[in-house]
Amino acid sequence: MTTDADRFRGDLPVVDAETAAAGIDRDATVLVSGFGSVGYPKAVPDALAESGRDLALTVVSGGSVGSEIDVDLVETDSIARRYPYQARSTARAAINDGTIAFNDRHISSLGDEVQFGGLVDADVAIVEAVAVGEDWLIPTTSLGHTPAYVDSVDTLIVEVNRAQPRSLERFHDNYRPDLPPNRDPIPLSNPGDRIGGPRIEFDPAALEAVVETDRSDEPYEFRDPTEDDRAIAANLRSFLVDELERSPLFEESVRLQFGVGSLGNALMHSLTEADFGDRDLVYFGEVIQDGLLDLLDEGALSSASATSLALSEAGQRRLFEDVNRYAENVVLRPADVSNSPQLIDRFGIIAVNSALEVDLYGHANSTNVNGSSMLNGVGGSGDFTRNAPLSIIALPSTAKGGDLSRIVPMVPHVDHTEHDVDVVVTERGVADLRGRSPRERADRLVEACSHPSFREPLYEYLDRTRSESGHIRHDLDVVFSWTE
Amino acid sequence: MTTDADRFRGDLPVVDAETAAAGIDRDATVLVSGFGSVGYPKAVPDALAESGRDLALTVVSGGSVGSEIDVDLVETDSIARRYPYQARSTARAAINDGTIAFNDRHISSLGDEVQFGGLVDADVAIVEAVAVGEDWLIPTTSLGHTPAYVDSVDTLIVEVNRAQPRSLERFHDNYRPDLPPNRDPIPLSNPGDRIGGPRIEFDPAALEAVVETDRSDEPYEFRDPTEDDRAIAANLRSFLVDELERSPLFEESVRLQFGVGSLGNALMHSLTEADFGDRDLVYFGEVIQDGLLDLLDEGALSSASATSLALSEAGQRRLFEDVNRYAENVVLRPADVSNSPQLIDRFGIIAVNSALEVDLYGHANSTNVNGSSMLNGVGGSGDFTRNAPLSIIALPSTAKGGDLSRIVPMVPHVDHTEHDVDVVVTERGVADLRGRSPRERADRLVEACSHPSFREPLYEYLDRTRSESGHIRHDLDVVFSWTE
Repeated sequence: MTTDADRFRGDLPVVDAETAAAGIDRDATVLVSGFGSVGYPKAVPDALAESGRDLALTVVSGGSVGSEIDVDLVETDSIARRYPYQARSTARAAINDGTIAFNDRHISSLGDEVQFGGLVDADVAIVEAVAVGEDWLIPTTSLGHTPAYVDSVDTLIVEVNRAQPRSLERFHDNYRPDLPPNRDPIPLSNPGDRIGGPRIEFDPAALEAVVETDRSDEPYEFRDPTEDDRAIAANLRSFLVDELERSPLFEESVRLQFGVGSLGNALMHSLTEADFGDRDLVYFGEVIQDGLLDLLDEGALSSASATSLALSEAGQRRLFEDVNRYAENVVLRPADVSNSPQLIDRFGIIAVNSALEVDLYGHANSTNVNGSSMLNGVGGSGDFTRNAPLSIIALPSTAKGGDLSRIVPMVPHVDHTEHDVDVVVTERGVADLRGRSPRERADRLVEACSHPSFREPLYEYLDRTRSESGHIRHDLDVVFSWTE
Repeated sequence: MTTDADRFRGDLPVVDAETAAAGIDRDATVLVSGFGSVGYPKAVPDALAESGRDLALTVVSGGSVGSEIDVDLVETDSIARRYPYQARSTARAAINDGTIAFNDRHISSLGDEVQFGGLVDADVAIVEAVAVGEDWLIPTTSLGHTPAYVDSVDTLIVEVNRAQPRSLERFHDNYRPDLPPNRDPIPLSNPGDRIGGPRIEFDPAALEAVVETDRSDEPYEFRDPTEDDRAIAANLRSFLVDELERSPLFEESVRLQFGVGSLGNALMHSLTEADFGDRDLVYFGEVIQDGLLDLLDEGALSSASATSLALSEAGQRRLFEDVNRYAENVVLRPADVSNSPQLIDRFGIIAVNSALEVDLYGHANSTNVNGSSMLNGVGGSGDFTRNAPLSIIALPSTAKGGDLSRIVPMVPHVDHTEHDVDVVVTERGVADLRGRSPRERADRLVEACSHPSFREPLYEYLDRTRSESGHIRHDLDVVFSWTE
């Protein structure tokens, strides 16, 4: 299929994973590639987990990674600190029981925070690549913050993974913004354009080890769309059709972002049924999920920009078999470009993200169940919700088989504020919150979005607070009585 | 002093304020100039208030405005809706008793929201100017969102105010970003550069009325710095000196933003005592307050960029007497440039904003006392806190003469999340929250920032939650027992 010369160029310090792992200090700060559960290093983390050493690593990824890091290294008590996002139950449990000190960060600014923002003092980067040279590498299934991470360390370990097609380079457009205070604007004029190349360059003196691997990603599994997913999708499509007519921003194109996950994937897929007239449909988000491949196959999508091919295993197979065709319309960028506040604004993106729950006044909790128990992290939801000219939260009206309302009096953790959330969509309907006072938002959310079985108690809560004074009326004594 | 020809050019529909006001529908959506309590229209709002008509206006300003709007129009029940910010007790009371429907918006995106974002369907703009022509005007003491507002209406009323020096035009640099989805990056390379001119252009068919006035702004009053203010300033300076050494961003210059208000003003002033080596000191924020004039007078400030000359009356006199000298280093921009997320990022701004309170995990409440009672609004604090590479919340550790702690278990309203707040400074000390887990943040905030008289109860709260599980540990039953 490929020859070694395709993947290894020049005089490289090729070693086995154990040797590379042995060079990492026990309490090192390790930056790893990986985003959307793909493109992360596998062999060196495994070697660390199996080393029997008493490790206390700080591990910083771009986004979610596989079990080699967030299960195996956790089970061997090797991780003391973990930023910025995870999506595996083992890591989640260790974060919630206090074994791992976790810090939940926005994706767009994470590269900056690592490189100069005082988040960490990084020691080593471990990066998965399809090919490596003496001063460059080509990433695999995600870019994430690899360009920033490679620039942040004096020691670099590259895993060249033969299980990742060499041709993945066709997707990559590496452009890392230069540093403030003289940072130029990102010179991208259209969501699907290219401004870089496939290579990430590095200081050759930093290249400590090159490790060969041959192991597939452990990508996401998406559940089949539920009835709620389909109803949410139908409500979203119907709202969008009206909005496209209203706003001058969408005369020629519709530029959408969807959050990571099964609902986001179902919403992407459902756009195959949307009638947006002769407008170009464009995706500008952080992950390519299976639903986007459907749109690409139907010729319904002009271009798709992201930082990760966060596909299911079946989706990966589909893509890997036809890289050249998909690469015509798909581009992968570093996460500080895919999630760039200025580009989300300049391109007029419509952001669609899910949440655990929203409250009567339009605040959203995306991260902490009952305000306490970390699920995955805020990821890029804040980047898009904060900066998009139209920000939509899409979620089912209930959780736990209907036992809990996801429309609550007050969310016990706020990731997105009333200042940022424009529209809420559930399977019940759409609440357009724009221009409404808090009380008007509350009435509209209960009426249009809440589940009928919770409507009465929500109205009771509102009635109870009507006698209070204040712009945002709450009865703080009972406001969290709905949490589990 | 000035001649009419300096202020009125061409064939203009000059009328008295009553005539101009009579043309406004009773339930019109009125966009007004004004930001930082200066540069707002005065005569037409007064004429509306005195008209005896049964008005139900929607009034959208750039930021805070004077009593002609937020007192007189409120007392005559003429305002049904009000966006995005106010700072007068009369408007505040009407918002909190529910008479006025208020919607609290970020400043940076407000112009977009008005022009195409679905916030309002605007009818008329009333704009204060130092001069007007048939298709242009020159603003007075603030730019705010006047460029966007003038583009959003078919009917424009201009108040030419002789009490505002004609020479104010020297400060103005009007550049309005073009609209998404083909919005170009803002072509500003340095915080003090100029990319526009003093004029705001408009469709001549929209110019309905020109009204002559001669009335001063009702600007802010700043209290003298308190002992707490001085201690906060000293702690902030000492933190900054260390941070400037640590970060490569600040090798050559220090680019600061301070929030509006007496504390912000005191902090600006206190920089006269700072030793930042031979670094250029630059201000890039939303308001020029008196403290910055001190720095300019001492030659300590390279440049100051803002959208408003939010000075005290004494500060205005000082500036008006020496416009030409101050205009060498001071530039006023539209609020979507002064508060631009991309510029805050590209220029590497250090953001310093106050808040009502912060909680143990780093969330900040800037707007709603007890989670309910609106103070002023979020203003630009979110624009800067979210996008600056270093975001600092500076506040006294207590309120109400020491009776209330401003470090609380959980804030009952979140304007800035744990993902955005990097550092908290009180008169007691500095808590650097970067890279810390929630529990580490809590310990550090209590230890470094809380008032000694609240340290025990805060530790008790933390002890009580240590037995709970979760990433962010709370006892939701008692979490608001500290509110009034």
